[in-house]
Amino acid sequence: IAKEVAKLLEMKAQLGEDEGKHKFVLKTPKGTRDYGPKQMAIRERAFNAIISSFKRHGAEVIDTPVFELKETLTGKYGEDSKLIYDLKDQGGELLSLRYDLTVPFARYLAMNKITNIKRYHIAKVYRRDNPAMTRGRYREFYQCDFDIAGQFDPMIPDAECLKIVHEILSDLQLGDFVIKVNDRRILDGMFAVCGVPDSKFRTICSSVDKLDKVPWEEVRSEMVGEKGLSPEAADHIGEYVQLHGGLELIERLLQDAQLSQNKLAKEGLGDMKLLFEYLTLFGITGKISFDLSLARGLDYYTGVIFEAVLLHQENEHVEEPVSVGSVAGGGRYDGLVGMFDPKGRKVPCVGVSIGIERIFSILEQRLEASEEKIRTTETQVLVASAQKKLLEERLKLISELWDAGIKAEMLYKKNPKLLNQLQYCEDTGIPLVAIVGEQELKDGVVKLRIVATREEVNVRRESLVEEIRIRTNQ
Amino acid sequence: IAKEVAKLLEMKAQLGEDEGKHKFVLKTPKGTRDYGPKQMAIRERAFNAIISSFKRHGAEVIDTPVFELKETLTGKYGEDSKLIYDLKDQGGELLSLRYDLTVPFARYLAMNKITNIKRYHIAKVYRRDNPAMTRGRYREFYQCDFDIAGQFDPMIPDAECLKIVHEILSDLQLGDFVIKVNDRRILDGMFAVCGVPDSKFRTICSSVDKLDKVPWEEVRSEMVGEKGLSPEAADHIGEYVQLHGGLELIERLLQDAQLSQNKLAKEGLGDMKLLFEYLTLFGITGKISFDLSLARGLDYYTGVIFEAVLLHQENEHVEEPVSVGSVAGGGRYDGLVGMFDPKGRKVPCVGVSIGIERIFSILEQRLEASEEKIRTTETQVLVASAQKKLLEERLKLISELWDAGIKAEMLYKKNPKLLNQLQYCEDTGIPLVAIVGEQELKDGVVKLRIVATREEVNVRRESLVEEIRIRTNQ
Repeated sequence: IAKEVAKLLEMKAQLGEDEGKHKFVLKTPKGTRDYGPKQMAIRERAFNAIISSFKRHGAEVIDTPVFELKETLTGKYGEDSKLIYDLKDQGGELLSLRYDLTVPFARYLAMNKITNIKRYHIAKVYRRDNPAMTRGRYREFYQCDFDIAGQFDPMIPDAECLKIVHEILSDLQLGDFVIKVNDRRILDGMFAVCGVPDSKFRTICSSVDKLDKVPWEEVRSEMVGEKGLSPEAADHIGEYVQLHGGLELIERLLQDAQLSQNKLAKEGLGDMKLLFEYLTLFGITGKISFDLSLARGLDYYTGVIFEAVLLHQENEHVEEPVSVGSVAGGGRYDGLVGMFDPKGRKVPCVGVSIGIERIFSILEQRLEASEEKIRTTETQVLVASAQKKLLEERLKLISELWDAGIKAEMLYKKNPKLLNQLQYCEDTGIPLVAIVGEQELKDGVVKLRIVATREEVNVRRESLVEEIRIRTNQ
Repeated sequence: IAKEVAKLLEMKAQLGEDEGKHKFVLKTPKGTRDYGPKQMAIRERAFNAIISSFKRHGAEVIDTPVFELKETLTGKYGEDSKLIYDLKDQGGELLSLRYDLTVPFARYLAMNKITNIKRYHIAKVYRRDNPAMTRGRYREFYQCDFDIAGQFDPMIPDAECLKIVHEILSDLQLGDFVIKVNDRRILDGMFAVCGVPDSKFRTICSSVDKLDKVPWEEVRSEMVGEKGLSPEAADHIGEYVQLHGGLELIERLLQDAQLSQNKLAKEGLGDMKLLFEYLTLFGITGKISFDLSLARGLDYYTGVIFEAVLLHQENEHVEEPVSVGSVAGGGRYDGLVGMFDPKGRKVPCVGVSIGIERIFSILEQRLEASEEKIRTTETQVLVASAQKKLLEERLKLISELWDAGIKAEMLYKKNPKLLNQLQYCEDTGIPLVAIVGEQELKDGVVKLRIVATREEVNVRRESLVEEIRIRTNQ
């Protein structure tokens, strides 16, 4: 027995040792990333283009919590609900991280009985998806949403959403793009005339949604094999979903023997025609494609749906333009707010979401390829000294500059070498150096050095702030 | 039996009914809030003051994910660890929402082997605390952090952090404030000379930390009763923690028979003296109080600690200034990065965190009390029509304005009444109306109405953009 005990103790000791060796893994969670100063500078550029457009269209801004009551999200995302991050039950309410900004927006409208708003919201959303980080697919990512809620005349807000997508993608100069447009009512009407049973509309819609990634043959076999659709119905759908075009296609489908008999399809096509008329006035139909294969996965859409795709990345000189994926999407969801209202009162909504991560990836790659050096601070001047024992004088001067609103830095050393101070400016792009020395202090001046030209001028201390402002245009 | 079955079925039906009646609660999670457009406008103002100061001091900006690996947060927050939000184990890594921005910053530095950075980070953090929303205490709240990492000469970065707090609180005009300063080494030295056993330093420190909320007598009884400290030691601490002052107090304590014999206390007091010398050069010692009762709860501090409190809110005309609580805090944490580094390499850090929620509360209350009307959009002009059937003309004109960078809105109605259009401008503060009418279209002009004065001028269409820019100063 003693032998056995010794053996067990030894085993235990070994286990203990192994546990002790358990390495702490130094990483961010799967599918997430940090943004360093350079990435943040790029991010700011993209955000600025987006926010400018949202503000140009008169949007207010709101913010909501990062998590919602779990039941707020329940039943809104169809097959994608499995991707929602739940919080641990630590006593109290059951919570989930938001999956998008649309459902929290609808909850906000219903909760505050708002029937009329145009707002934007830029925030992170969370999806337990398979990350593909090089292509800009993350588990934590920003969405930039613009939505118009309210009862209005048809297609005017819808057209504005498409105008905004067009503006932003043009501003960001991401290369050629196309905005595909369809309508849930046209899809549902098409399913009906093709002989899809009502109960299968949503699941067949999910299959169609995959057409941007997989070929028709695969989608067809999913419809027939997995989802039990008749081969005839599938083939009929196959004919429709290859159609795409503009006003002339809409006109043709309005005359289509079968679709024209279907109430939903007719409504949808009528509105699509109106939308294209408005987009013609905006002068943007060149980038818009009415595309019957566009389905979009989310359950809550009720009318127009759209998705913007980049046709090819610059630097990739391919013969045929290749789609590099969706950078914006949206649509009309007239029933979502009503799902939250105790009396089911509806607030019609239409909105667009800019998928900023893929845009970041492109801008980041582009910047790396270029030789452009990006500044990560806005510092106008470095307060430096040429001799030792001038820390106190540097502190006094920098404090004066800060109090006057000048962006100023100094090295956190008692007696830094002048060369190191100048090198710091070269490295970080600071354009000016304000040098204090014993002689300058006696003369009541500061030596201002222009880093780019190495020019040095003595400036009277009382004029220094103004001189820095003029030389940095701020 | 049939009777029993019927009874059971009835019971089941009733249960089912009750379940059906389960009311969905329309709310945000406990301790969280939405920000509507007005609150966001206030928030922007506060953020702008804070970001301006951070940028003035040459800070870069970073961002990290909202959640971290659970073990990243383990062992960093002492008694407060119970307030961390964990995510549900859905397979894969165990995750927690960040509790502050300091630990993710340290993880970021260690992971990327950064030994030298000055950065700010503004983001939401999460604590399962008891919310007190009217006083600005939430479970989801923003922190605005500025930190300086790197090996530098003593107290220069520390002094800059205090300068920043001083700048921000002055800019925001929140009323009178004081920044309390202490040093963990002085506290530890004090505990040692008072006869607190080493093992009880942290827990006695937690007790001292409560002194801003509860009177000394209560803290003393916690030390003696719950934590088993000798009454003599407690009384000795009691004498020290009532001390606060400036340079003269530091000098006095440097001569203190007991403290001067303690290595840690001596180091801390020496640095405190240096800090006050630098703060004198910055001209801000008037608002700084060296306060031996300041402890701060977090485990990771190793040197200087500080906390800014507002002395009283305006509108509250009380005899004695009453502290309304902490609005900023921070300190030096030289060991935290080393906890993440595989080889334990240290990166000394000092930083400050602005507690923005309490500041929002004050700004919000102040705005409500005032009659100031706050604009929530930046729209420069409303495109309107005086007659019917001009939707297409409005769409054409607004598209021209957007493309020229003008912030413009229109009502989403085919035939809006002019009065409704003018009312919309009054309600939302839009300063100009561009009115298209049949006569104006014929004449190639647009009627520009200045909402404030009701003045109307005809502007040639090709000059409209310029005219709007001039009149709105943009």
